[in-house]
Amino acid sequence: MSLSEPVLLLDTARAKRNLDAMCARARLAGTRLRPHFKTHQSHVVGRWFRDAGVSAIAVSSPAMAEYFAADGWDDITLAFPFHPGMRDRIDALAARLRIGITLADADALAGVAFGAPVDVWLKIDVGSHRTGFDPDDLHTLQRVASAVAGRTDTRLRGLLAHAGHTYGARGSGAIARIHEQALARLRTLRERLAAGVGPLELSVGDTPACSTQADWAGVDEMRPGNFIYYDLVQWQVGSCGVQDIAVAMACPVVARHPARGELVVHGGAVHFSRDSMAIDGRPVFGMAVAPDGAGWGAPLPDVTLHRLSQEHGIVRAPEAFIRAHPPGSTLYLLPVHSCLTADAMGAVRTLDGETLAMMPRGPSAPA
Amino acid sequence: MSLSEPVLLLDTARAKRNLDAMCARARLAGTRLRPHFKTHQSHVVGRWFRDAGVSAIAVSSPAMAEYFAADGWDDITLAFPFHPGMRDRIDALAARLRIGITLADADALAGVAFGAPVDVWLKIDVGSHRTGFDPDDLHTLQRVASAVAGRTDTRLRGLLAHAGHTYGARGSGAIARIHEQALARLRTLRERLAAGVGPLELSVGDTPACSTQADWAGVDEMRPGNFIYYDLVQWQVGSCGVQDIAVAMACPVVARHPARGELVVHGGAVHFSRDSMAIDGRPVFGMAVAPDGAGWGAPLPDVTLHRLSQEHGIVRAPEAFIRAHPPGSTLYLLPVHSCLTADAMGAVRTLDGETLAMMPRGPSAPA
Repeated sequence: MSLSEPVLLLDTARAKRNLDAMCARARLAGTRLRPHFKTHQSHVVGRWFRDAGVSAIAVSSPAMAEYFAADGWDDITLAFPFHPGMRDRIDALAARLRIGITLADADALAGVAFGAPVDVWLKIDVGSHRTGFDPDDLHTLQRVASAVAGRTDTRLRGLLAHAGHTYGARGSGAIARIHEQALARLRTLRERLAAGVGPLELSVGDTPACSTQADWAGVDEMRPGNFIYYDLVQWQVGSCGVQDIAVAMACPVVARHPARGELVVHGGAVHFSRDSMAIDGRPVFGMAVAPDGAGWGAPLPDVTLHRLSQEHGIVRAPEAFIRAHPPGSTLYLLPVHSCLTADAMGAVRTLDGETLAMMPRGPSAPA
Repeated sequence: MSLSEPVLLLDTARAKRNLDAMCARARLAGTRLRPHFKTHQSHVVGRWFRDAGVSAIAVSSPAMAEYFAADGWDDITLAFPFHPGMRDRIDALAARLRIGITLADADALAGVAFGAPVDVWLKIDVGSHRTGFDPDDLHTLQRVASAVAGRTDTRLRGLLAHAGHTYGARGSGAIARIHEQALARLRTLRERLAAGVGPLELSVGDTPACSTQADWAGVDEMRPGNFIYYDLVQWQVGSCGVQDIAVAMACPVVARHPARGELVVHGGAVHFSRDSMAIDGRPVFGMAVAPDGAGWGAPLPDVTLHRLSQEHGIVRAPEAFIRAHPPGSTLYLLPVHSCLTADAMGAVRTLDGETLAMMPRGPSAPA
């Protein structure tokens, strides 16, 4: 393959295998699967989920809700904190489909009224300290829950959490400790709140726990997103095997510097994003894999992307590898964080050569 | 202003002032100004340069060359290393306009022939060690220069450098030391090569040097890009004042956490990019500014964006500031690296409310 620019390749067989595995895990756990679509942001990939029996999804912005509503999805949770500036866009969605919003601040609905009922999830901070209500602050939670339950334009649906700190875990045992602590907090909180406002659902989403944990007792839905593609971070955490990673960047080599053990590819921060992971204490932005037919096979751990500028990627590699890759040859690199890489690229190309469009970049509405 | 999603604001008066100042600096230096258009990636902003008398530009990908060629630019240098996979796209451009390419590997033209003459610049590594030929490797450079000069489908134009290590400098004096060393190397190399291949131009581009240095003797063109918008890094380096930064992210507040001194905005890695800078030894992704009319004024150094996930931005701020910004209010944040933030956003909105489109995301050609 000789490329004129970097391309994000998608091995659809791997992605569909990841999808089937997660559907099976959700069935076994007895929970609804509400996959997060922020990773693929693609109508075509979304339809694979529909074919697998998925009918409810999560998204991370009003624009993404609108994009998937346009492809017929009619049960969408905006798993990102609602604020009054979103009101008109959420209201327009509520008029045509079942839309859920997430509250992370006691005043997020101040002055807001909806024309059609909106599901409301209370975001609970189970330990990642990104956002959400403190589960120990029962006073605030009871007040917010009662207020939502007492309105005619909202339905108090349940408690929603994302244990993002599982990304710092290494292996199933470490993920289990975080997962069990998060579930214990949510179950206790649900009991305490139910006395005042009736039954509440629990929605839990983080790819490490959804990919590895068996205990989902009392959980109504799981919301993993990244698993459709996986990536090097998920492999490092222990969510997947390296053979499950379904996307790879194909980057043209543009220059070789054997004396310093590096080659340069077209593939920079605007392609990979700047998310990195530590390997042996050093930041890495991607790891090479061996080409295999139209796709790729085993990782090449001594060929890593370790420095990025806007369009350049600097790859550390053994001298023989560098000499074997003149300008115009192609390097295949697994991304550190597939959500951000896919978002940066804006499209994926299947191994059959079909380009799958993603949600367009840029402003989505007059805002 | 109440926003439904993050918006990248552009203060056109500041940008045009930056443009006028750089045009004046180039005139004073007696060099051609060949601005790099990777920062704004916008037809409309590009036309301001044309109105200011600019006729030659630099871009960082074949797609960007095609995008600006479509708006009538007819003297374009691809200031990114050429490789054989680009041949067809460059050839199509060469048939209709003056296109220059950059070589950073002795084999980059292997097997390549163009149908119309292409300008060739030899990329020289003046110390940033990203890519380019070693200026001390005269043997290789003489061989490559002679080969290019001896072809009928290429014109050996000159030596091109980007002293990217000025970004690590602090203040005009430190920038000067890097700049003078880079120019000394280029001048010496030009003399040595000219004996064999005739006169060569020098093209130098880095916003810190172009914004602050007075010595351009012997330099034929300067290629700064970032200066049109500037950003926090350029301010830290000393290229600009904070009042010269012409873009700011406007982000809706979505949740407050006064107990931990933080608030959460809609504005994450897919909006800001993940480029960070160190302030007091800690990574910062943005700094707040006070709103001022339709735009913004002075920086608020104790309100900083210090943690990002895909859509969330976590801002550290004093408690009074947090309490005064309920969900739905707007925070204005200067970006760390405006090139990457603009690229991530895909559009800018002027203070008059006009949205300026940018180069579309996604694959630009069948590749």
